Amino acid sequence: MRALVYNGPSQLALEERPKPQIEHTSDAIIKLDYTTICGTDLHILKGDVPEVTKGRILGHEGVGTIVEVGSGVTSHAVGDQVLISCISACGACTYCRRNMYSHCTTGGWVLGHTIDGTQAEYVRIPHVATSTYKVPRGVDPQALVMLSDIFPTAYEMGVLSSKVLPGSTVVIVGAGPVGLAALVTAKLYSPSWVLVVDPDENRLEVAREWGAVDACTPAEAVGKVRELTEGVGADCVIECVGIPETFEQCQELVAPGGVVANVGVHGTKADLQLQKLWASNISITMGLVDTVSTPTLLRLLGSGKLAADKMITHRFKFADMEKAYGTFGAAAKEKALKVLVEM
Amino acid sequence: MRALVYNGPSQLALEERPKPQIEHTSDAIIKLDYTTICGTDLHILKGDVPEVTKGRILGHEGVGTIVEVGSGVTSHAVGDQVLISCISACGACTYCRRNMYSHCTTGGWVLGHTIDGTQAEYVRIPHVATSTYKVPRGVDPQALVMLSDIFPTAYEMGVLSSKVLPGSTVVIVGAGPVGLAALVTAKLYSPSWVLVVDPDENRLEVAREWGAVDACTPAEAVGKVRELTEGVGADCVIECVGIPETFEQCQELVAPGGVVANVGVHGTKADLQLQKLWASNISITMGLVDTVSTPTLLRLLGSGKLAADKMITHRFKFADMEKAYGTFGAAAKEKALKVLVEM
Repeated sequence: MRALVYNGPSQLALEERPKPQIEHTSDAIIKLDYTTICGTDLHILKGDVPEVTKGRILGHEGVGTIVEVGSGVTSHAVGDQVLISCISACGACTYCRRNMYSHCTTGGWVLGHTIDGTQAEYVRIPHVATSTYKVPRGVDPQALVMLSDIFPTAYEMGVLSSKVLPGSTVVIVGAGPVGLAALVTAKLYSPSWVLVVDPDENRLEVAREWGAVDACTPAEAVGKVRELTEGVGADCVIECVGIPETFEQCQELVAPGGVVANVGVHGTKADLQLQKLWASNISITMGLVDTVSTPTLLRLLGSGKLAADKMITHRFKFADMEKAYGTFGAAAKEKALKVLVEM
Repeated sequence: MRALVYNGPSQLALEERPKPQIEHTSDAIIKLDYTTICGTDLHILKGDVPEVTKGRILGHEGVGTIVEVGSGVTSHAVGDQVLISCISACGACTYCRRNMYSHCTTGGWVLGHTIDGTQAEYVRIPHVATSTYKVPRGVDPQALVMLSDIFPTAYEMGVLSSKVLPGSTVVIVGAGPVGLAALVTAKLYSPSWVLVVDPDENRLEVAREWGAVDACTPAEAVGKVRELTEGVGADCVIECVGIPETFEQCQELVAPGGVVANVGVHGTKADLQLQKLWASNISITMGLVDTVSTPTLLRLLGSGKLAADKMITHRFKFADMEKAYGTFGAAAKEKALKVLVEM
């Protein structure tokens, strides 16, 4: 089969690889229908995620059709079309029983990370019963790909972690797909307003179109938040970039009593200005998505309350996967949000 | 009157100062009966709290008797003996209405910080109605001094912020008075165990006597927590020191899903190891005490469930205040926890 392989920092290639086999009784082999590229894949290419070793097939998002199941699988059958969650979970370990699927002792974020991923014609999915969702009738499988990772990540680690509530004041730093998904899902809670910060004017324009009260560059952010909050700061500050500069700026934007929710994937440490913040009564949260919200997001998508498909700006055939990376990696120039890759 | 005055880093002196006057209608003038010294005062002497300017009378803890009230005060009268809270609060501003008394727009931590404090024969207390508590009948006013700051701080910013619950695993870094108060108040929730970390063997011994499952030096902490938790880390990690090294160690001690609650007063920034922690599903909290728990702690003290008096290891007359600072500042050598100063 053909697969997109990571060959070390800044190096990837579409290569011929053996088709995956069932390894455990709870596995399934899935033939991909659609996949996509995540900002996290770009972090991997930067070398920010050192656990990813050379030769790894990337990708942790996709919709596909089951072609084989392990002997222990009773919930799913060959022919089922499923949404693949970016988080694989056994459902039974000490973390899974606490709904912390991201820390599943035999799962978590493994796809395209510590085992081969979804940017391939076929993928082995561990614990298929609790790592996938059958595609509901009437739901567009292309839009559904946006629910593998970016929508649950933005919603859980951004909106829920930062405690967005009716009337909250919200700043989202980073208007990539996850930042924009945070904007869309924050608005489910009717905040007073959402301000979006990004250096890319095209993305700021998208944020305004999608309902941000305003959108500004990082250089304008502190002044803009002061203006909007009479100097107090925002209740909920959501970091969707993953570099020290953006995380550090969030510390200047948050109000007393507020939350900085880190969503970004980081490759280096950041400074925490404790000499300013120790008396500020704030929380800082960080973590991998547990995908506990996927059923909720599926219902919202099914009822037309979540326009996930508008995130897709570019479409590629799988044979053009390297070109798809080029477009996604030059998102500002290409005005790209998510690229949908059809197998 | 005599007062303990901060004259710049490492410089303090008992000086003659004018007796404070009523400045606002909600003020009271209180004659101190007892005061004490806080770890925060030592941070001020180190220069960690630059808002404290030369000439400031230090101190934010004490029990005293009202000798004069402003024309607007109806709740308190001359002769009332009161516990002075380290946090002054108007009770009416936007923060006070959210129970965030620490950020009161005309109060917060002002005593011995931005206005003159309690290490003096008399002190002016703003908003006396909502900044003091009348001494309940039968409660020892000396033990009560421990409720001005250290017990509410340890309980709210340590135990409550780190979400200690029955069965939790708890590490307290720093076994000074606040760390030990965190130990005592964490145990109110019946955690599985509390481990206390400090370089001072005397304080470790106190922690063991007061119910820590074990107590160890910082060098032993990572290994000890791994041993106690089978490598997972602790649910609740409470930082009660206020230096980068201890805050940074807390990041190594916390379990996925856990909380690092910073209680310490910090004078410099610290490193946040986001490249390790971004996927760890932890929270970090920090802030000034709101003293919303003071009524609860008063009830616990009154019912004999909070042995606050055992925190007092040394007693001084106010004339020996400089000596009291010497003893408290050399706590390890002097085996000092809290010093009680009698006026």
